[in-house]
Amino acid sequence: MASASDGMNYAPQGKPEPVVEPGEFCFAVAAMDHGHIFGQTNGLTEAGATLKYVFDKADPDKARKMAEERGAQHVTDLDVILNDDEVQLVAAAAIPNERAPLGVACMNAGKHYFTDKTPLVSLDQLSNVWDAVKRTGKKYMVYYSERLHVESAGYAGQLIEQGAIGRVVHMEITGPHRVGDYDKRPDWFYKLDQYGGIICDIGSHQIDQFLYYAGCKDATVSSAHVGNYGNPGYPELQDFGDYHLVGDNGTTMYGRVDWFTPHNFPVFGDGRAFIIGTEGFIEIRKYIDVTTDNGGNQVFLSNADGQQRFSVSGQVGYPYFGRLIRDCLDGTETAMTQEHALKTAELCVKAQAAAVKVA
Amino acid sequence: MASASDGMNYAPQGKPEPVVEPGEFCFAVAAMDHGHIFGQTNGLTEAGATLKYVFDKADPDKARKMAEERGAQHVTDLDVILNDDEVQLVAAAAIPNERAPLGVACMNAGKHYFTDKTPLVSLDQLSNVWDAVKRTGKKYMVYYSERLHVESAGYAGQLIEQGAIGRVVHMEITGPHRVGDYDKRPDWFYKLDQYGGIICDIGSHQIDQFLYYAGCKDATVSSAHVGNYGNPGYPELQDFGDYHLVGDNGTTMYGRVDWFTPHNFPVFGDGRAFIIGTEGFIEIRKYIDVTTDNGGNQVFLSNADGQQRFSVSGQVGYPYFGRLIRDCLDGTETAMTQEHALKTAELCVKAQAAAVKVA
Repeated sequence: MASASDGMNYAPQGKPEPVVEPGEFCFAVAAMDHGHIFGQTNGLTEAGATLKYVFDKADPDKARKMAEERGAQHVTDLDVILNDDEVQLVAAAAIPNERAPLGVACMNAGKHYFTDKTPLVSLDQLSNVWDAVKRTGKKYMVYYSERLHVESAGYAGQLIEQGAIGRVVHMEITGPHRVGDYDKRPDWFYKLDQYGGIICDIGSHQIDQFLYYAGCKDATVSSAHVGNYGNPGYPELQDFGDYHLVGDNGTTMYGRVDWFTPHNFPVFGDGRAFIIGTEGFIEIRKYIDVTTDNGGNQVFLSNADGQQRFSVSGQVGYPYFGRLIRDCLDGTETAMTQEHALKTAELCVKAQAAAVKVA
Repeated sequence: MASASDGMNYAPQGKPEPVVEPGEFCFAVAAMDHGHIFGQTNGLTEAGATLKYVFDKADPDKARKMAEERGAQHVTDLDVILNDDEVQLVAAAAIPNERAPLGVACMNAGKHYFTDKTPLVSLDQLSNVWDAVKRTGKKYMVYYSERLHVESAGYAGQLIEQGAIGRVVHMEITGPHRVGDYDKRPDWFYKLDQYGGIICDIGSHQIDQFLYYAGCKDATVSSAHVGNYGNPGYPELQDFGDYHLVGDNGTTMYGRVDWFTPHNFPVFGDGRAFIIGTEGFIEIRKYIDVTTDNGGNQVFLSNADGQQRFSVSGQVGYPYFGRLIRDCLDGTETAMTQEHALKTAELCVKAQAAAVKVA
């Protein structure tokens, strides 16, 4: 029986280093409605970017605190950010249905935009964003954190690229979540038109991973379901969603998201992925390996070489952020193509729209 | 971090004992096309049944060998079995498309019938079987082995029944398989009209589990896919199939089957199930816990009590077989209702028919 990897056949590629000097790439935070803004900011600053401004229209105190902690300037007027030529990118985690309008405003002001997932909530917004991309030449990039900020998810991509499982045939990717303290969630969390539906919102992670691992440019929705099984007091909260897709290259995918992680579970959810290839299969246990002390970021590879477990926390890093910075500076698309970022968004919206309400 | 269960909150129920005296319940084997016949026979004899005859029309030598090893009588004429009043049940693992006709013949002769899964391959066969059930009053029972002969699958059912995860919301159940030596597979393995399609055949296991765990009486097929991704030399072999169902009580299910288990994998497939409830979730690792020495039959329960791993090999047994014998003798339905056995079959056929060929 194989044990934890000692770096045998599939050593993770080296962790990335900062890609710019201090001050060379300045960005601003322009909305803090979702806590992901801290992950977005950390990723960028660890890759060398300089946080210049912090703004949040709903909660100036939160913005002031973040600015103080990170040596940035708190502003109470978004226009200060939009009018500063030194700001090259605006990072934001607005309420989902406000992400696209904010992004278009930033792009119109000549800034690249880096939004929390889900990037938008309707096909109209998608159309507006594509128009802005073409008109301004600026990027509308997305923080699909369950891949971009999860080392095991990145490592699985490396394994697939190295041919470790042959042709990718299929994957199941699940993203269970915990509501936590219901009273501490913001109002928009419970309002369907604001969060966009569970598939559109947290289900966007799995669709991003699918397009990436499968190497697809497009996909169709075979079926989708949403439901509220356990939260009758919050009628607009979809606590379950799932979807079944086929990629344009024939690779299939099933995704599931839910809000049923028990309150005392050690992590926010037992996120998993199973990726089936013609020559083997990969399992990812992203945040926990339940009932073991292995920690998160466990990748299991079964192929002709046998069965191997790779424990990759601290081994892979998060190359996305440095690449995103370089892409903005160099006009390249090494971090993520615009097509990928927005095709994911399109499929989220379509899967959400196709979803049959089953509970 | 919780460790392997020592029988804390959810002790498996006691292993079943034989339910009849020797000779009290005689059965015969009438087709050995699939190796599952040995599992079917073991289950029955361990529960006290007496194997009287063995017959196989395609391979008399195989039947003779089995009869000799098990103290039974080899016969070369099925009618010997059908005409013996002492035989109360006929067990058979015929070629899938021959299972229903054989079953109807046995029921017409006054025998209960216990077939390997999949029990039938078309809605016409389903209609014939239902007619025979009603006309003869005999049972058409099915060996859905991935639940009935897997202790961890049985234990998960006990946990659900005890309310360990609240209301069952959803499940994903996967049944990857290995082809093994392609030349040793029988001709019918590669012929679509004989094996019935991958969803109809091996996909029947997951549908049985779904109806059982969800407590549904019926379901609809939201979508399904089949494909041949890696076996161009065998054009009628579907090496992949998946399906997405909704139960009549709103519980959803996704199932996947494939023939991509690597040739050197320690077991025939890494069969799994994830069962999501409003109060917790269960994972089953049926045959292996990859890269550990835990063995198969691992059940993981996460709920308000924390996270627990139960290693249940030898703890649960296979109560189905004794119940089946008692049901035949007593006219009860404690092992499996006729409705369940044939609703599973119906959904297999419908999912197979609905499946879009994607590769």
